[in-house]
Amino acid sequence: MTETAPPSTMTEAVLEALAEGLSEGALSNDSAELSAARADRSGKIADGMPIAVVHAQSVEDVQHVMRVAHAHGIPVVPRGAGTGLAGAAIAGSNSISLSLLRMNRMLEVNAADQLAVVEPGILNATLNEQLEPHGFWWAPDPASRAISTVGGNIATNAGGLLCAKYGVTREAVLGLDVVLPNGELLHLGHRTVKGVTGYDLAALMIGSEGTLGVVVGATLKLRPLVPGELWTIGAEFPDEQAAAEACAAVTAARIRPAVMELIGSVGIQLLASYTRTTLQGAFVLLQTDDNDGEQTAKAAAEVLERFGAKVELTNDLERSAHLAEARRQMMPAMEAAGNVLVEDVAVPRSRMAEMFAFCNDVGQRYGVTVSTVAHAGDGNLHPAFVFDEAEPTEAVWRAADEIFTKAIDLGGTLTGEHGVGTLKSRWLRDELGDAQYELQRRIKAAFDPAGIMNPGKVFGE
Amino acid sequence: MTETAPPSTMTEAVLEALAEGLSEGALSNDSAELSAARADRSGKIADGMPIAVVHAQSVEDVQHVMRVAHAHGIPVVPRGAGTGLAGAAIAGSNSISLSLLRMNRMLEVNAADQLAVVEPGILNATLNEQLEPHGFWWAPDPASRAISTVGGNIATNAGGLLCAKYGVTREAVLGLDVVLPNGELLHLGHRTVKGVTGYDLAALMIGSEGTLGVVVGATLKLRPLVPGELWTIGAEFPDEQAAAEACAAVTAARIRPAVMELIGSVGIQLLASYTRTTLQGAFVLLQTDDNDGEQTAKAAAEVLERFGAKVELTNDLERSAHLAEARRQMMPAMEAAGNVLVEDVAVPRSRMAEMFAFCNDVGQRYGVTVSTVAHAGDGNLHPAFVFDEAEPTEAVWRAADEIFTKAIDLGGTLTGEHGVGTLKSRWLRDELGDAQYELQRRIKAAFDPAGIMNPGKVFGE
Repeated sequence: MTETAPPSTMTEAVLEALAEGLSEGALSNDSAELSAARADRSGKIADGMPIAVVHAQSVEDVQHVMRVAHAHGIPVVPRGAGTGLAGAAIAGSNSISLSLLRMNRMLEVNAADQLAVVEPGILNATLNEQLEPHGFWWAPDPASRAISTVGGNIATNAGGLLCAKYGVTREAVLGLDVVLPNGELLHLGHRTVKGVTGYDLAALMIGSEGTLGVVVGATLKLRPLVPGELWTIGAEFPDEQAAAEACAAVTAARIRPAVMELIGSVGIQLLASYTRTTLQGAFVLLQTDDNDGEQTAKAAAEVLERFGAKVELTNDLERSAHLAEARRQMMPAMEAAGNVLVEDVAVPRSRMAEMFAFCNDVGQRYGVTVSTVAHAGDGNLHPAFVFDEAEPTEAVWRAADEIFTKAIDLGGTLTGEHGVGTLKSRWLRDELGDAQYELQRRIKAAFDPAGIMNPGKVFGE
Repeated sequence: MTETAPPSTMTEAVLEALAEGLSEGALSNDSAELSAARADRSGKIADGMPIAVVHAQSVEDVQHVMRVAHAHGIPVVPRGAGTGLAGAAIAGSNSISLSLLRMNRMLEVNAADQLAVVEPGILNATLNEQLEPHGFWWAPDPASRAISTVGGNIATNAGGLLCAKYGVTREAVLGLDVVLPNGELLHLGHRTVKGVTGYDLAALMIGSEGTLGVVVGATLKLRPLVPGELWTIGAEFPDEQAAAEACAAVTAARIRPAVMELIGSVGIQLLASYTRTTLQGAFVLLQTDDNDGEQTAKAAAEVLERFGAKVELTNDLERSAHLAEARRQMMPAMEAAGNVLVEDVAVPRSRMAEMFAFCNDVGQRYGVTVSTVAHAGDGNLHPAFVFDEAEPTEAVWRAADEIFTKAIDLGGTLTGEHGVGTLKSRWLRDELGDAQYELQRRIKAAFDPAGIMNPGKVFGE
């Protein structure tokens, strides 16, 4: 760990300027807090220590931070709950970590317009708890929903388990309030379902990982709570090839499950030793929630059986929870086996079996453990590297490199929902191509001419 | 009409450069074609005459046009079928009209990945005819679908009748191939459902009205054909206040019809005299297409009746078509009464009744005919001005101005789905605010530093 350098005159001037105008208790230079701001869940640690953590309590706090940073040319790193898996929210030397976690209120629920207005620091799960009595929910459903914020979901265009059916974050946001790097407050998007006045900057902000501005408010598109009955399928397959093909066949049969998760054989082995179950081969968890959920689930079960699955179909809530538990225990099972680097490629659904096979092959060739779980309804695979060392080894990075390249070759992308952050910036140009890469840099400059908004993230420069 | 000026040396040089490298028959300076390129369906006519119409037949043709235009600093105006209602595709003096209408093939349908790859000039209805045998459809459903292109739908982020349930164009596009103003070809977006590699420039392009680049290919997200049965409601109300409130109540009751259209009383009068029906008051057309469509339709009918509607409910296809005919005949009925300027505001659904009342009030105050039809599921109103003069009168523009301002005051927008074009650029800054307006201009410059890509549209400068 880097030690804090003695504050320079510049740092002191910035801290003084910050202090003059922030809410009580918002400014911290407590060394434990500064240290914590250097990390997220990617395993990446920023070089050096930020000069301050600001716990913004209002839009004005955020504007004040950006104005001071702008005047002094100091980088600002926006941060939610720090659950990011790509290192987009880590703050290094000579920067300000701007936490939105205290701005966590739901400001409005409008049943007639089926929207809610929230501050960015509210947790996804908390929001959904608060929406439930109103008969609504917000669809983005990252596996981290209990611990990740709506602002973080917006920053990464989070997807998750339900999005083959219910869409990603971009499809669930109507408008955003954004503070620009110079402190100006913008209202992007609409409270209406349609709107085409100028460029859709709200859509552009979603997935921009804090590099264009700070999201300080969001107008969210709500869905009425699903009235259907939950039906769950647990399906054991001899191997992931059969499982991946079966899932693709479910999609091809125009069956639209709410959840369709595939755990590969390496993961099942880790899970078996962690949970002492007797699962073998590969496992598919499938859930339906329509009015005619039973019919949908039975149709899906038939398809899966055609590919050699041993299928359990249930609408018993306890049994359903038990089957879903296999998916939920995957992360703890991996963490029990070592340190974990979770990757996040996405490929066209028809290429999923091929991508699965490639991940297994790469693991064998490099002698590293690659446990792959897929959101099989949308072709998003999370190959996770499990290793004993403190940091990913060179072999892990070389294996990851092959996986990213393969995903792009298959017509896919190197990140489906975690973002580029610092972890994947070295592959960004490969996927975008030079001309688009340069265009994206120019767009970044249009928002942030001074280059103070989360610099070094996404583009790595 | 302006006469064509004798070609200048500059014009000759451009025409010569264009000719060297275009497909056979792509370049035209036929005066009838040049004239036609000055107009679309907005009623706006561009000042002066373009120097050429290019009927691009390939991506290379488009790249060639942009390279020549870039080298000579000549504006290029991309154009589909010319059905736009905002004047975004009209080409004036010293510009090139770039028609994409001959690039009209569907290049791929991929059932496994539920996507299609198309050229921009294919008509929306033609695409859907070609998709039908594959068991798919593409959801954007502008009223112009029989005559408007997919490229045009993308340029305006078209919505239409079905989008409260099935979303707008942005939710139905995965990726775009775009030729930049300097002739470079970019592949934006993905063939995957998820993807968050850098900024979402595909989303930014959608609705940008040809001002950022030329869409030369689109990867479209398909939906399996709806298996449900069509149920149709025709509901007569004493007035549009009751009708608008009833529609809002349908939404609030969490009923999601596929179609919910409201025709106001002025429109019903025009319709009655055009079709010689006995309709009175206001009319709501509602359709459901779920598996449990009958149940949904009956629930909707109950809500409408509570607001005083005389309801007809049917699953007879002929009767259904008859009821839907009222909505389809609305445009011809208005055109039979005079010249028509169709406006396109959107407001939060809860404010629809208020917006309807305001449109009627404005019509009375200015002594102009304002016939309003609404996509009542999503709060998008089309107040149409019907007048005898060749051009909209000053009273019409003043009335329109009040309607736009009111929509913005109600938390809405001045264009839901037609775009800004040349027609509404003078109100753009009012809605966006100065800071966002300037940011949007900087983004435009990041794509188009030379300012040759459909200049004067959207921003009006």
